[in-house]
Amino acid sequence: MSLNTATVKEKCNLRQAIDLCASYGIGGIAPWRDKLQEYGVDEANRMIQDNGLRVSGLCRGGMFTLEDHLSQNILDDNKKTVDEAAAIQAECLVIVVGGLKPDSKDLAGSQMQVEDGLFKTLEYARTVKMPIAIEPLHPMYAADRACVNTLSHALDLCDQMGEGIGVAVDVYHCWWDPELESQIKRAGKNRLLAFHICDWLLETKHLLLDRGMMGDGIIDIPLIRSWMERAGFDGLKEVEIFSEDNWWKRDPEEVISVCMERSAVC
Amino acid sequence: MSLNTATVKEKCNLRQAIDLCASYGIGGIAPWRDKLQEYGVDEANRMIQDNGLRVSGLCRGGMFTLEDHLSQNILDDNKKTVDEAAAIQAECLVIVVGGLKPDSKDLAGSQMQVEDGLFKTLEYARTVKMPIAIEPLHPMYAADRACVNTLSHALDLCDQMGEGIGVAVDVYHCWWDPELESQIKRAGKNRLLAFHICDWLLETKHLLLDRGMMGDGIIDIPLIRSWMERAGFDGLKEVEIFSEDNWWKRDPEEVISVCMERSAVC
Repeated sequence: MSLNTATVKEKCNLRQAIDLCASYGIGGIAPWRDKLQEYGVDEANRMIQDNGLRVSGLCRGGMFTLEDHLSQNILDDNKKTVDEAAAIQAECLVIVVGGLKPDSKDLAGSQMQVEDGLFKTLEYARTVKMPIAIEPLHPMYAADRACVNTLSHALDLCDQMGEGIGVAVDVYHCWWDPELESQIKRAGKNRLLAFHICDWLLETKHLLLDRGMMGDGIIDIPLIRSWMERAGFDGLKEVEIFSEDNWWKRDPEEVISVCMERSAVC
Repeated sequence: MSLNTATVKEKCNLRQAIDLCASYGIGGIAPWRDKLQEYGVDEANRMIQDNGLRVSGLCRGGMFTLEDHLSQNILDDNKKTVDEAAAIQAECLVIVVGGLKPDSKDLAGSQMQVEDGLFKTLEYARTVKMPIAIEPLHPMYAADRACVNTLSHALDLCDQMGEGIGVAVDVYHCWWDPELESQIKRAGKNRLLAFHICDWLLETKHLLLDRGMMGDGIIDIPLIRSWMERAGFDGLKEVEIFSEDNWWKRDPEEVISVCMERSAVC
């Protein structure tokens, strides 16, 4: 298992998250960029390596549509993110591509800008050998966070771009997709760069911040894991739970033990 | 334009909704079943026909997964709904297929039950010549309302089942889909049975009850309408807005005039 720092973001800084992982024998961590900044990237790397943790991914690059064109600013920030991922020896850089361009209804145009941004970021990432993982988000985030919403679409982009790019499969975003099994197979071992788990609550109260703990919702996680493994994925199960009114409020030690217990059976 | 009664459900009974349509010169109405019950189906039909309204659809049949098997109860209720649709001379019966079976994580099994229910309902609907329109819902409703979430999936079902079944395209559910244009084309005139419009608000506050008025959100409705028309659709634009905190609270006359103004340009 790997702990995505978002799961304990309200109660733990990076050092505390690392200490938790170390003391519970968790194999990996996936920091968000803001957590890296707390100590600086080099110190963060030292703390992570000193505790023998793998880094299942850095969250996150992308957001290529924050401006109405692919500005130098956006590209530079993505290069910087690639460097940070390399500096902490991340197994991939997770990319959330961005939603519609500002004040725009142009889905196709936003997707073209995303392609352009992905390609330019990938060109740089190849020079430092950092794998790029496109994370397709649930379609309910198509407007404001990511206009790539299915594994099929993400893999079409990968096909176009060649080496060094793959996908992050998050059960929360993909569980409903009737093509999920076939697209995981299509991706294959080399492009399955990350596997994120949490659960979809039957009564979801908030579009962003009401994810469930594995087992509390309706996703058949073991089934999806089996598809990942059959396709050759052998990385860590990364637990990423946004839960403003529940898990973020609890004692991180409790959160971690429940995560471990639940992820062991899914 | 056609008025889906859900748009004014808090302030208007069926008679008031019909009167509104008549006095504003709206061409059609799409009642929900609970509204039909207020006067009984025959009286509802009389009121609708007396005002010269088309019925762009009856909302709704389906919900084949409310029990853990396809019970006689579910099938009978669907037959009754088909009869109601015929009695009010609806152009189609809109079907929302149902989500996961109770206490289940079995998406594939739920989808099989849906197929079975659709097929049996269709067999009956053919005898009274009532077209069945599968409405794929947004993937955020896959667990609790409909486990058919893309036009592609809905059309696969139509392909299997043959004559008498098509789709209802609601921009709210489908706008994000990268295959939307191609799947509308695939559907073709004979299977494009209904076109529902409203808008996706950039800051959506509730998964079910926070839809926007056309023009207030980010969906390029004219673009999707142009795809529908190119495929041969020439039916009514049905306005269906669930909006607990905004439109449902307003004076229905205001709601209708804004609907007419906005639907004229989209």
